[in-house]
Amino acid sequence: VKAENLQPHGSFKLRAAVNTLAGMSDSELRDGVVTASAGNFARGLAYAAALRGVPLAVHVPDTAPPAKLGPLTELGATVVPHSFAAWWTVMTERGVAGEPGRFIHPVCEVPVIAGNGTVALEIASQWPEVDTVVVPFGGGGLSSGIALAFEALGRSIEVIACEIETSTPLRAALDAGGPVSVARGPSWVDGIGSTSVLPQMWPIVSTLIRDSIVVRDAEAGAAVRQLARENHLIVEGAGAVAAAAAMSPRLAGRKIAVILSGGNIDLPVLARLLTDRST
Amino acid sequence: VKAENLQPHGSFKLRAAVNTLAGMSDSELRDGVVTASAGNFARGLAYAAALRGVPLAVHVPDTAPPAKLGPLTELGATVVPHSFAAWWTVMTERGVAGEPGRFIHPVCEVPVIAGNGTVALEIASQWPEVDTVVVPFGGGGLSSGIALAFEALGRSIEVIACEIETSTPLRAALDAGGPVSVARGPSWVDGIGSTSVLPQMWPIVSTLIRDSIVVRDAEAGAAVRQLARENHLIVEGAGAVAAAAAMSPRLAGRKIAVILSGGNIDLPVLARLLTDRST
Repeated sequence: VKAENLQPHGSFKLRAAVNTLAGMSDSELRDGVVTASAGNFARGLAYAAALRGVPLAVHVPDTAPPAKLGPLTELGATVVPHSFAAWWTVMTERGVAGEPGRFIHPVCEVPVIAGNGTVALEIASQWPEVDTVVVPFGGGGLSSGIALAFEALGRSIEVIACEIETSTPLRAALDAGGPVSVARGPSWVDGIGSTSVLPQMWPIVSTLIRDSIVVRDAEAGAAVRQLARENHLIVEGAGAVAAAAAMSPRLAGRKIAVILSGGNIDLPVLARLLTDRST
Repeated sequence: VKAENLQPHGSFKLRAAVNTLAGMSDSELRDGVVTASAGNFARGLAYAAALRGVPLAVHVPDTAPPAKLGPLTELGATVVPHSFAAWWTVMTERGVAGEPGRFIHPVCEVPVIAGNGTVALEIASQWPEVDTVVVPFGGGGLSSGIALAFEALGRSIEVIACEIETSTPLRAALDAGGPVSVARGPSWVDGIGSTSVLPQMWPIVSTLIRDSIVVRDAEAGAAVRQLARENHLIVEGAGAVAAAAAMSPRLAGRKIAVILSGGNIDLPVLARLLTDRST
């Protein structure tokens, strides 16, 4: 496992946020930065912005759990809530008209994708025998960054995406040969899932990611329990989806690195999953 | 934090078990090995014995939770339950009369203590600035091993023990100037606590360990929640006691390494602690 849940602020997003601000000049950052994020990217960016001493405004969907919003204000960010649909518009239109500050997209930015790729550099050096990496698919920035970094290293490692059954835009796009609209059902798996693969990400995603394993809710819950009982790690939904996908029979016999992308799960949700006897 | 909960089999005990068997010849191991343990040492020893291909019998107190006993039989060990008092007698008398196999005490063995000391070697190299180490106190084997290793390195680092309020044999011994009998109340903190400091450990413990911080039940529960929410780590009671002690005002301003000794907690107990609103 690549335990990104143990990163400062509990997810891999720190990599992208720090890398992105590191590449921007003080004058580019004069009016601060803006993002749209379900929480983890915003938290990583809030940390990076605080380090750099620049203000941050974060547009969030009102489905984001308290565990992800509290730390943003603690780090000094301004939180702007929207309905999920309105939030998605802010994301696709890269901000709100008239708003000051540079918009940083949580997925579709070269330095964001490159920052995510550092996960792959570490896997390649720490476990040379790896042949497969299983990555939770949200916007495609993590899976693309990892796949690109392996390409840059000249390593033929298969990067397999995974999604929760309540929201499968990548599975649908792979089946249809391009982005299509899908329903997004409610789930405790809140860090991934959308209503469509972002069109601007499709060229890179379709080139680098050949398959997506769809995980059932019960499988993800069982993965939370197994990681707690056997590995003593707490993962949020997206990480549990990746762990469940990595245990699927389709991948038997492979040397799999699974990306436990984050650990920011509300404790009452975790407690319910730990005691769930239904599976 | 020194996250020994992330070790194979979920505790630091692997270090002592592997080190002890590594120093024994095949002829010494001919009739197998025997131990008395609340669980974690037995689990580490079961792993080490399986690697070496020798049989293991484990005397356990009937207060040990299922999370700690299941893995023993899975690793091929024979489990022998006793009342806590009878189990304590097996421990102090180093086994049961007529039983074959070499008895390995979970605490009072030179190679056990030396194996535990590897924790200190790693802390000293990974964090040279450390000035204090907080260690949960069960039998004294971990705290002694850590303190001895720092002595061997010539480092003047204060090793502070900690205990849960329901069982404070070290606090009582330090106050009395020698081992005395204390009550041992029930607690979800099951890996530490006894009715007395072992007399054979007192000379080394009293030389190396000058203080013990007593932690209240509610403080240990709050530490479980904090480690879950902020660090995404699952710890068992003993580790939570150490984390709670490290956060005590008495240690403010120090550079503290806290030993999260293990993560083998029953999931229903963990779920209850995560949702406890009483503190």
